[in-house]
Amino acid sequence: MAVYTDVSGDDLAQFLADYDLGAMLSLKGIAEGVENTNYMLHTERGFFFLTLYEKRTKESDLPFFLGLMEHLAARGLNCPQPVKNRDGVALGRLSGRAAAIVTFLDGVWPRRQTAAHCAALGEADAILHIAGGDFALERPNALSIDSWRPLFDSAAGRADSVQPGLSGLIESELAFLEKNWPRGLPEGVIHADLFPDNVFFLGDKLSGLIDFYFACNDALAYDLAICVNAWCFEQDASFNVTKGRAMIENYRRRRPLGRDEIEAFPILARGAALRFLLTRLVDWLNVPAGALVRPKDPLEYFRKLRFHRQAASIRDYGADA
Amino acid sequence: MAVYTDVSGDDLAQFLADYDLGAMLSLKGIAEGVENTNYMLHTERGFFFLTLYEKRTKESDLPFFLGLMEHLAARGLNCPQPVKNRDGVALGRLSGRAAAIVTFLDGVWPRRQTAAHCAALGEADAILHIAGGDFALERPNALSIDSWRPLFDSAAGRADSVQPGLSGLIESELAFLEKNWPRGLPEGVIHADLFPDNVFFLGDKLSGLIDFYFACNDALAYDLAICVNAWCFEQDASFNVTKGRAMIENYRRRRPLGRDEIEAFPILARGAALRFLLTRLVDWLNVPAGALVRPKDPLEYFRKLRFHRQAASIRDYGADA
Repeated sequence: MAVYTDVSGDDLAQFLADYDLGAMLSLKGIAEGVENTNYMLHTERGFFFLTLYEKRTKESDLPFFLGLMEHLAARGLNCPQPVKNRDGVALGRLSGRAAAIVTFLDGVWPRRQTAAHCAALGEADAILHIAGGDFALERPNALSIDSWRPLFDSAAGRADSVQPGLSGLIESELAFLEKNWPRGLPEGVIHADLFPDNVFFLGDKLSGLIDFYFACNDALAYDLAICVNAWCFEQDASFNVTKGRAMIENYRRRRPLGRDEIEAFPILARGAALRFLLTRLVDWLNVPAGALVRPKDPLEYFRKLRFHRQAASIRDYGADA
Repeated sequence: MAVYTDVSGDDLAQFLADYDLGAMLSLKGIAEGVENTNYMLHTERGFFFLTLYEKRTKESDLPFFLGLMEHLAARGLNCPQPVKNRDGVALGRLSGRAAAIVTFLDGVWPRRQTAAHCAALGEADAILHIAGGDFALERPNALSIDSWRPLFDSAAGRADSVQPGLSGLIESELAFLEKNWPRGLPEGVIHADLFPDNVFFLGDKLSGLIDFYFACNDALAYDLAICVNAWCFEQDASFNVTKGRAMIENYRRRRPLGRDEIEAFPILARGAALRFLLTRLVDWLNVPAGALVRPKDPLEYFRKLRFHRQAASIRDYGADA
């Protein structure tokens, strides 16, 4: 929740000279967005979103992200559309950063997530997986299971300072997942970060998905497992099977799950929980002095992991086996 | 630069039900604004600004601030307009805070301030003073000279931790100002906080003034002295007489300064510098743990004060005596 890079009116006017958007009228830094700097941009052509990519987003990945948003929107998924300049290029440079303008997407992310929201997201995630099927570019998942041990190694020595015993629990969980991680599941483009603040609604109707900057190629059902983790637990870390059922069954209506995906689901959910536990733990232990962004609580995912460890089947998530 | 109060879509929809703005389409927290929480609001009627007033803005002052914005706009000064609900009321409650919707104002605040910007602001400040002449409400300046000693008392013990000798310098300056502060100057409504981030431009043309939440009744020339402090120094604390001349002489073209105001100007400038030195010092010494807002450097105003202390006349600011 911060603006990392300040953009002057002069620099922006120069940047906009390459676009058919008319003169700049207004530019407001947006408080949302943890990784990159986002502005609401008003020009003579309307309202847009301007993103400056900060160091955690690799520039070489941007053609994948921007191309994917264009590809998905052309197939009916509502998401921001990269705006191209007069040379047909969506990616530029502004204030020393890679930068892109995308269309403004209406909607509000739901602070209180209901089963209706979960149902709508399940359907949208399946639509995304189908629409991404013929996307030409590929991007390996930089936060796949192969990355978890190096992440853990960087945090293991201090993990117990967050919660006693945390290091040992992660070690045993990691060993289990490395041994039992399902291979050969249907793969494709996944969003990989469909948390509530990346899913917009107008009333109960899902109006669009945003923030494709973790999108990559990985097991499709793993994406659904990330969503279940992010949406179907209550504040007290209890699992809400009504929400789980709504999300998974609505996903399956659009894209049926195979037998292998159904059986792998509990372990995919464990892996998804460990992935967010690890990245949050690393962020938690490495807050820079004077940081303007509060790190998210890693223990939220420790508690979710505990639920997944005792789940025997997809039925424990409310879905049909 | 923070969103202090999160607003859910449900709460906002309920709030908007009292307005003729149609359905809510989008709500984005804005990173600008240190005192209050600001959102960019999109409804079926267009784009607006939604402000939630946090604890440093007194609720009993809000009718003055909102009424003033309406009064000034009716007299041709470009500033945000409070939007009234169906009962004709501009002030409501949302998420436990007093809240108001105002019109969206185009423009960008200038990161690099030029003499042309200073000239435009001088003129706008004079227009504001004239337009405010028949505003019915009054609000004493809560940060007038009478408030400076209590402010200093709360910080004096720790002032030297910011810069050795700072406490003694403020003490002697305060004693001088208390003894020599000009009384009986023309008074009226002043903005009192026309820093660059509160003044919008489209190109070199001033498009509007925002953030009236320090506005009050005080000496008109004191407001101009605040502007000169905020706009006419360079990064190295040297005073730019070209900017000073542009600002003051353009002010005078709209509202001539009286002999008393001309002679009082250097001491008004000293007072304005001390006022911001003191409030910044107090903020600097009282940053709450985990604060998301970085305090502004009080020593910037210590350096400006040093310039004012050796100024003998308004000529030292580039203006005609």
